[in-house]
Amino acid sequence: MTARTALMHIAGTGSALPAEPVDNAALSRAFGISEEWIDLFVGTGTRHFGWDLATGKVTHTLGDLCAESAARALAAAGLAAADLDFLVLSTATPDTLLPTTANETADRLGLNHLPTYQIQAGCSGAVQALDVARALLAGGHRTGLVVSGDVTARFLEAGRDASTLARQELVNYVLFGDGAAAAVVTARPHGDALAVHGLLHRFAGRGRPPGQIVGWHGITEPDPDRQMLFEDYKTIEEEVPALAGEIVWELLSTAGWTPQQIDAVLPPQLSGHMTDRIVAGLGLPPGCREVSCVRDTGNTGNALPLLQLDRLMDRLAPGERALSVVVESSKWVKAGLALERPADPGEEGHTR
Amino acid sequence: MTARTALMHIAGTGSALPAEPVDNAALSRAFGISEEWIDLFVGTGTRHFGWDLATGKVTHTLGDLCAESAARALAAAGLAAADLDFLVLSTATPDTLLPTTANETADRLGLNHLPTYQIQAGCSGAVQALDVARALLAGGHRTGLVVSGDVTARFLEAGRDASTLARQELVNYVLFGDGAAAAVVTARPHGDALAVHGLLHRFAGRGRPPGQIVGWHGITEPDPDRQMLFEDYKTIEEEVPALAGEIVWELLSTAGWTPQQIDAVLPPQLSGHMTDRIVAGLGLPPGCREVSCVRDTGNTGNALPLLQLDRLMDRLAPGERALSVVVESSKWVKAGLALERPADPGEEGHTR
Repeated sequence: MTARTALMHIAGTGSALPAEPVDNAALSRAFGISEEWIDLFVGTGTRHFGWDLATGKVTHTLGDLCAESAARALAAAGLAAADLDFLVLSTATPDTLLPTTANETADRLGLNHLPTYQIQAGCSGAVQALDVARALLAGGHRTGLVVSGDVTARFLEAGRDASTLARQELVNYVLFGDGAAAAVVTARPHGDALAVHGLLHRFAGRGRPPGQIVGWHGITEPDPDRQMLFEDYKTIEEEVPALAGEIVWELLSTAGWTPQQIDAVLPPQLSGHMTDRIVAGLGLPPGCREVSCVRDTGNTGNALPLLQLDRLMDRLAPGERALSVVVESSKWVKAGLALERPADPGEEGHTR
Repeated sequence: MTARTALMHIAGTGSALPAEPVDNAALSRAFGISEEWIDLFVGTGTRHFGWDLATGKVTHTLGDLCAESAARALAAAGLAAADLDFLVLSTATPDTLLPTTANETADRLGLNHLPTYQIQAGCSGAVQALDVARALLAGGHRTGLVVSGDVTARFLEAGRDASTLARQELVNYVLFGDGAAAAVVTARPHGDALAVHGLLHRFAGRGRPPGQIVGWHGITEPDPDRQMLFEDYKTIEEEVPALAGEIVWELLSTAGWTPQQIDAVLPPQLSGHMTDRIVAGLGLPPGCREVSCVRDTGNTGNALPLLQLDRLMDRLAPGERALSVVVESSKWVKAGLALERPADPGEEGHTR
């Protein structure tokens, strides 16, 4: 194995999941959905909500979760907020349109006088944010913070009898959960950082209808014909496994790796059951470990790839390699990461 | 004058303003606001709306305006969509949370298999998008598209008697307008492109309350105490002139220029009257030309700096220099550009 120059390094990660996990029995009681149907259809066991299931009152904003996960990522990296040169936050569900949750999070971390960016995106937002971070590090910055998260409070309604909903709206109540996760990234190796050897971020939606639509309202009455939250679950089930396979091959090609060299995979995570089907179709060797979180957290949107990365951090031995595979179905984005724990942390340079 | 390596080049620009301009008399008739008060308080003469003032029906989405302005920018640069390596779009008011308006715009331009980014931001979004573009160009991309815009349809209500509103809500009806503008950016000089010799993008909001709040609703009932659109106009009036002065000095310092070398200024544009006060306080030489659009377009948020840039394109002679000065008051962002029309288009290299 020759030493390659990495695109960037993951120096530390952190997660934030609000409140206690909500199991399928509790979800069933809250929304009148059959527990057996959730087990059968979704295969997700628990998820977290930053709002009270009984009253709808918000207990954790996206800003709360982002600041908490960012503080943990900094602690894991052994760095302070003052070490950061920039912040990139991604979400589909910002607390407000303005100020950005990126700037609210920056304020809460005590940051000032640095560039901050908020990426609007769906499931691929974390990789998009890492892509921006990579470009900023290449341009001379040394250390940055990437934070990604989503919250459901404005799309799920407390007290709703969801059993009467059309299936494409019902799935929203059983698929999603709230959360945020963060990664501190550096241009040079830092401690036992993971090295990023490939990053894929590519729009692939020309001429294709969206697989997911998330609307928003202002003060004026919404168009009554305009559905607020829409999942074309059938198309997603059909398209994501094939796209995931393409992403694996593109990442391997970029990094110059073979499937047999991959020790762990972080698959797209729409639901527990879909994850099983996707992983089975990737063509990775039987010994390749799956690093998943969806069965415990639900689909947390922007947070999910970084929640997986947070779980990967102490599960990848020196010299081992992992692929993060991400598909955004809103308007079809292919994304992913090729990751390696360096065999010798000092081989690419010195700790900052 | 020594030839400096520019950060990037503005190869072409384009604007899109919906429908016919709405003058103060028409605005007064539609919302019951005194025409004299608009003249006195705001100093803006016309603006454009992508929705019908009588019915509220949307006639132009943000995606419509972004695609239109992008096509014009490509035509002005003499390039085709196929020449683009990436797209960065900024807005505070996306058509939907997902799919992003960036990806809807990409689809409409016929783009595919390239990275696309949507920056959530207020007035400084265009500079933030150019900042991301700069980093991407530094990382090896050759040509990119930046598009920025905002629309008001979900924050202004057709048929509303605005004369009864509190002033901080009333101002929304007289300050804003809809629009989008675009710029094609290149790593190397292209034709008679403007060279960007400095770019400032810095969060400056630690510990400061937001000067502007823009909320959004989902399917659940909003918190009745939560105001949807809020302008702390008094604080904005106080803070923006001083921040604008700081931005001028930071840009001059970065570019190594003196105030006497500046031929044109693109000032922050909250309203016609405030622009006059801000420009007067910048300390630029008397001959320095102001390039403004707010009196014709209203405050178009993300679009405005690129609308000014579009107007600058045929008003800057070879060898002349301009500063774009941008303040975002939501959570206080300092932003700006140092621009130059090269005296000799060939001095930095060859056209792509």
